[in-house]
Amino acid sequence: MADGPIAETPQRDRRTRRDIDLDVLTSHLGYSLRRAQVWVFQDFIQALSVIDIRPAQYSVMVVIGANPGLSQAELADRLAIERARLVHMLDELQQRGLTERQPSPTDRRTHALQLTKDGQKLLKRAKALAARHEARLAEKLGTAAHAQMLELLKGFVRR
Amino acid sequence: MADGPIAETPQRDRRTRRDIDLDVLTSHLGYSLRRAQVWVFQDFIQALSVIDIRPAQYSVMVVIGANPGLSQAELADRLAIERARLVHMLDELQQRGLTERQPSPTDRRTHALQLTKDGQKLLKRAKALAARHEARLAEKLGTAAHAQMLELLKGFVRR
Repeated sequence: MADGPIAETPQRDRRTRRDIDLDVLTSHLGYSLRRAQVWVFQDFIQALSVIDIRPAQYSVMVVIGANPGLSQAELADRLAIERARLVHMLDELQQRGLTERQPSPTDRRTHALQLTKDGQKLLKRAKALAARHEARLAEKLGTAAHAQMLELLKGFVRR
Repeated sequence: MADGPIAETPQRDRRTRRDIDLDVLTSHLGYSLRRAQVWVFQDFIQALSVIDIRPAQYSVMVVIGANPGLSQAELADRLAIERARLVHMLDELQQRGLTERQPSPTDRRTHALQLTKDGQKLLKRAKALAARHEARLAEKLGTAAHAQMLELLKGFVRR
């Protein structure tokens, strides 16, 4: 995959097209992960722009959809999202009529999160668009490299 | 590496320890890349906290160090950092006496960036700390998995 299609970007009209050395950065996993993550997120954002859903909103809706009734604390913990940021995101999704907070049947101090009917419909569409994005990605990287990357990254994602 | 040391986090005292399903998220490369990147950055930030250098500052100093005289536009382009953000970062590094902007010998409209003597000294220390962070990471992931991951991610980093 050394210099596959993903590495190519349009030529900029720099006065001096210097070959700028990245030095030790190429040996740092963090640097490579960041560049890859930004690239993949940009493609994802583009893919889901028709329904105005961003990566973090997608994650939140997927997990509520698969675990209806979970609490904000559980969701924040599971996705490692800061509590304040999650509350803000849920406010936005609720205003769009996609998610709702019900009183928890077991604990009066928490809410039980769920998708509305509209939320379920939108999530279905979001999953289809995200699957298409993922398929495109697998095609670009090569199916084997894509699967291998997912496998290697597993250790970072608590299951 | 499926459930290696990296996946483990301290037990939280949740009232109900539910097994929250991530559903399709685990099949998305973007999600895994993001979780991994956040994890590695946190470790990197911790490792370089003694010299108060964050990941983006490190990247900027490394590239200036390896390419003295390059312009802000070239640096922003090479690292895919937004121009305004880079200017702000360079202001901060300059205030700390680590980098400087010289008039460009070839183009009056641009600056030639370089490290100060103090900047060179600090970069040397930063590289040593970053190398230790990287070695620890390779140890945790396994040397082979670490190398393989770097190789697979190459395509995302324009060289």
